[in-house]
Amino acid sequence: MKLYGYFRSSASFRVRIGLNLKNIAYDLEPIHLLRDGGEQYSDQFAAVNPQRLVPVLADGEHLLTQSLAILEYLDESHPSPPFLPAAAKGRARVRALAQIIACDIHPLDNLRVLKYLTKELEVGEEDRAVWYRHWIALGLGAMEDMMAGDAMTGEFCHGDSPTLADICLVPQIFNARRFDTELDGYPTVMRIFDTCMALDAFDRAQPENQPDAQ
Amino acid sequence: MKLYGYFRSSASFRVRIGLNLKNIAYDLEPIHLLRDGGEQYSDQFAAVNPQRLVPVLADGEHLLTQSLAILEYLDESHPSPPFLPAAAKGRARVRALAQIIACDIHPLDNLRVLKYLTKELEVGEEDRAVWYRHWIALGLGAMEDMMAGDAMTGEFCHGDSPTLADICLVPQIFNARRFDTELDGYPTVMRIFDTCMALDAFDRAQPENQPDAQ
Repeated sequence: MKLYGYFRSSASFRVRIGLNLKNIAYDLEPIHLLRDGGEQYSDQFAAVNPQRLVPVLADGEHLLTQSLAILEYLDESHPSPPFLPAAAKGRARVRALAQIIACDIHPLDNLRVLKYLTKELEVGEEDRAVWYRHWIALGLGAMEDMMAGDAMTGEFCHGDSPTLADICLVPQIFNARRFDTELDGYPTVMRIFDTCMALDAFDRAQPENQPDAQ
Repeated sequence: MKLYGYFRSSASFRVRIGLNLKNIAYDLEPIHLLRDGGEQYSDQFAAVNPQRLVPVLADGEHLLTQSLAILEYLDESHPSPPFLPAAAKGRARVRALAQIIACDIHPLDNLRVLKYLTKELEVGEEDRAVWYRHWIALGLGAMEDMMAGDAMTGEFCHGDSPTLADICLVPQIFNARRFDTELDGYPTVMRIFDTCMALDAFDRAQPENQPDAQ
């Protein structure tokens, strides 16, 4: 497989974790989101993804977009180890936790949104950082409330092996730290983050370990 | 089942369509997002969803959150008619189209985000409307590019029966129209919207047909 991604993109980071957990070898095609006004805006990349976002996963000639869709595809095409529990209620819980991050935090703190705040709405640096941390605090607070004291929470977000929820959580914590977000209020979240990062599949996927990290 | 929702919430609208397509009867528990500063902020509702967002679906005593997770749950627990095609590549395409809306448009135009723009960043009404339409145009433009001329597009976003992608698309078009978004540039998207709205399951789910619509 081939992954079009950017070392710091947290959606790319999710897919790297997923590929590592499934033990799938892949080639990296780095798309630098800041260089030359953003390589994702090249005509060449438009043919890969009309939405001009990373990640894109190529499975042979077949191109896949949207990180959560890619992860579900990997799980369906390479079932072991599973990213989701077997029963529908557990699967719904894992997906809901993943979507708190993927739908309610990350889209608001994405590079293109931060750029819009600065360029179109003339939001200053400090107000932009407050915005960034606001959505993280709301989302992680909800995750903490949902996971702490819930018997379905285990060593990981759901049970004792990593799922889609952990795959989304870890890159979000990296982002939170980059913007100096206070994380003391989320002890369950952070315990799980540490458990994940002790695994090679998560560690190898982190931004600084990518060949395109400057 | 019982649905906690709000007539105008597009994530609630998605779940209403899903329940109708699966022919599942449900009771409505209206949560008015504007009345009394927002009923989702009541202590009572915090016990239902710590994230304080609608929709929440109660299947017996079991509470489910996040609209896409709820829809996948409905599809797994009530397989017919399916919301996803059978093969992994088709499933990935449908999920990616759904996520363009659920991850890249809707979170940016959500009520809580519009409120933040107004109250915290003092963004004026016109700039806020431009923001709203900007993310819709980007997302619908990408959907149009991905669907037009793709043989996998049929009467609906994928093939000739409604999927998760159509379920997300329809409420987004309602939102776009509420904010006077120009939609002439998306002929494939709008053809599919019209096809969906001719179905009773979609029509019955629309905001104005809800008992809590004022």
